[in-house]
Amino acid sequence: MIELADVRDAREVVAGVARHTPLEYSYSLSDLSGASIHPKFEIFQRTGSFKIRGATNRIASLSPDEQAAGVVTASAGNHAQGVALAATRTNVDSVVVMPEHAPIAKASATESYGARVVLHGEDYDEAQARAHEIEREEGRTYVHAFDDPLVMAGQGTIGLEIVDDLPEVDTVVVPIGGGGLISGIATAVKGIDSDVRVVGVQAEGASSVAESLEKGSVHTLDGVDTIADGIATRRVGERTFSVIEERVDEVVTVSDPEIAVAITTLLERSKALVEGAGAVPMAAVLAGAFDYKKDEVIVPALCGGNIDLNMLRTVVMRGLVESGRYLRLRTTLKDQPGSLDHLIGIIAGQRANIYAIKHDRTSRDIGMTATEVELDLETRGREHVAALIDELEANGYAVDVLV
Amino acid sequence: MIELADVRDAREVVAGVARHTPLEYSYSLSDLSGASIHPKFEIFQRTGSFKIRGATNRIASLSPDEQAAGVVTASAGNHAQGVALAATRTNVDSVVVMPEHAPIAKASATESYGARVVLHGEDYDEAQARAHEIEREEGRTYVHAFDDPLVMAGQGTIGLEIVDDLPEVDTVVVPIGGGGLISGIATAVKGIDSDVRVVGVQAEGASSVAESLEKGSVHTLDGVDTIADGIATRRVGERTFSVIEERVDEVVTVSDPEIAVAITTLLERSKALVEGAGAVPMAAVLAGAFDYKKDEVIVPALCGGNIDLNMLRTVVMRGLVESGRYLRLRTTLKDQPGSLDHLIGIIAGQRANIYAIKHDRTSRDIGMTATEVELDLETRGREHVAALIDELEANGYAVDVLV
Repeated sequence: MIELADVRDAREVVAGVARHTPLEYSYSLSDLSGASIHPKFEIFQRTGSFKIRGATNRIASLSPDEQAAGVVTASAGNHAQGVALAATRTNVDSVVVMPEHAPIAKASATESYGARVVLHGEDYDEAQARAHEIEREEGRTYVHAFDDPLVMAGQGTIGLEIVDDLPEVDTVVVPIGGGGLISGIATAVKGIDSDVRVVGVQAEGASSVAESLEKGSVHTLDGVDTIADGIATRRVGERTFSVIEERVDEVVTVSDPEIAVAITTLLERSKALVEGAGAVPMAAVLAGAFDYKKDEVIVPALCGGNIDLNMLRTVVMRGLVESGRYLRLRTTLKDQPGSLDHLIGIIAGQRANIYAIKHDRTSRDIGMTATEVELDLETRGREHVAALIDELEANGYAVDVLV
Repeated sequence: MIELADVRDAREVVAGVARHTPLEYSYSLSDLSGASIHPKFEIFQRTGSFKIRGATNRIASLSPDEQAAGVVTASAGNHAQGVALAATRTNVDSVVVMPEHAPIAKASATESYGARVVLHGEDYDEAQARAHEIEREEGRTYVHAFDDPLVMAGQGTIGLEIVDDLPEVDTVVVPIGGGGLISGIATAVKGIDSDVRVVGVQAEGASSVAESLEKGSVHTLDGVDTIADGIATRRVGERTFSVIEERVDEVVTVSDPEIAVAITTLLERSKALVEGAGAVPMAAVLAGAFDYKKDEVIVPALCGGNIDLNMLRTVVMRGLVESGRYLRLRTTLKDQPGSLDHLIGIIAGQRANIYAIKHDRTSRDIGMTATEVELDLETRGREHVAALIDELEANGYAVDVLV
């Protein structure tokens, strides 16, 4: 099992390539939660996530011959970019295998950091199989994304930075996918101060750890389903699981809507773009997924910001809907002059802003004397939405909430 | 005219309320531009913009009687929140008048910082008239958004921070709306080092300064039209204009599409949410709106992050389209089995990903034997878009690019 000394050794190695990222008190997140929130902004790390730390530590450990032969990995995510830049910065050649249908942006970014990208297979498993073939064919070293002591120790350098910058920290909240990040961070912070609490967070749709902890051995999920693609893994590692069992105090889950609200909140309040996997710690705080005291000093590790911008557009809409600030509804009007005016008058009286209106007089699903209208509205919160719907219904409109 | 000493005096006053915001070297923005880019991240300022600096300096200057009588202003933007929090932190009562149809989020945020919000009038001018009535009726002090020496000096504290943190700065790039920010910053940096170049940036749709500089007096635009609502002002101030004439080296403009690309780039590369007005300096660099040398040390002042999230969704789409990474097109198919397959085969061959497809066999605008299809595609850049369209046209498809 890795120990504090391993993380300390990693620190100097990692410092040559990765940034010491900022940790800042947030007035607005503290106001929202009642705790004293100091996010660790690992989104500002080079390549946009923490993965470069572990990859740098792993690649630096290779012998000159191994370095000359190069490295290979399989990933369509942050690990791909981390390995690519870590290798380039150490003058090591790298190959990254991605599934054929990987997002174009991910492949381009990985290439821009200096890796050769190979597109192969229908899914991650097929890409990984191809990466292991390349490992054998070309004598390259395979860099695992999490279940490797040097990778874990590299990620743990975040824990050292947290305790250095904020010695009074009470609780560190960390995402769990494969478990590399949390095992490193838990080893670092518990090694320095065993009173610091470490809370792990998984997405509900990829929560392999709870069952694994019950059983006492790694449990593999049949499938995963979450917007937090960076932690959408079917199982944690064997090595990381041992560390989690020993050093993590609590593991909780959050839902996709809770993650969407957290992403939206971090954008609006902190002006920070955080991907789903990076936002789960803040989602856990905001959703009350674990208990904390008033003014407890909490560090959510916002570990990555590489969210696809089209996904972001969807998530922001979901976040606004969940917090009652966007409402799309459908209702029907009598097909007679003035009926749309009447409806809009009620909405104006409730001070909701109309973003868009779709008035369809040709729909076949309704009676001949009625006409359908769909409205996109800006609202002030859940209570406002409820009041608005009550008022519409009191005026005889059947309201169908669409999102 | 304000001088460096005024800005230095403001610094201590402002420090009690506002943050010294980070200035960080950006690898990716430097790679993109060829310059050495160190953005000033004023988006992380309290209330999400620089306005709190000037408001704090102004309110602190009031006599005890004036402070007891409170302040008033008119704004539906960042100045509203800046005045609200600056007043609250100084134990001064504040009233902010906004037009009746101001975005709900702006009113809520301003209230949350402690101001009483009055909704009045159809537009900014009517709101401002009401604010001046309240000024007289209640004996409050009106806090101007820019044309006030103490406000200008307060905003100028950003310039002191820039030179302190990066003495080797060559060029500072600053948005211009009313001119308060740039007059303060120019006074500070030129006062310390007259060799530092100060470039002002306006939105094309609100570019009052170029003509004012030609004429030598303030020119008022008939109207404004830009997504950068924070700098959508019809004229600069009289006091700010004098400073701009004397201390700003160059004033350039950027278009809305250039602003959208800059916002999108800052999100993806810097993980930072910047509003339109805050993004114009980066837009000016990326669009080559002014000349700079290779590796020139440039500080774009990213002065605000308060963009409405629905606006953000639109801007991100526009940014992706402008950079050739999102394409919506319409074409027609022969209405026979296999024709959609054929089209999709061509797109797959060009390695564009399909986000959405709308296949409408009931449209009335086309012949009876043809059928219309609309495609949303992820593409790799402008060259990729051009190649894809060429390939479709070579296969006999008439392509209509929709966005």
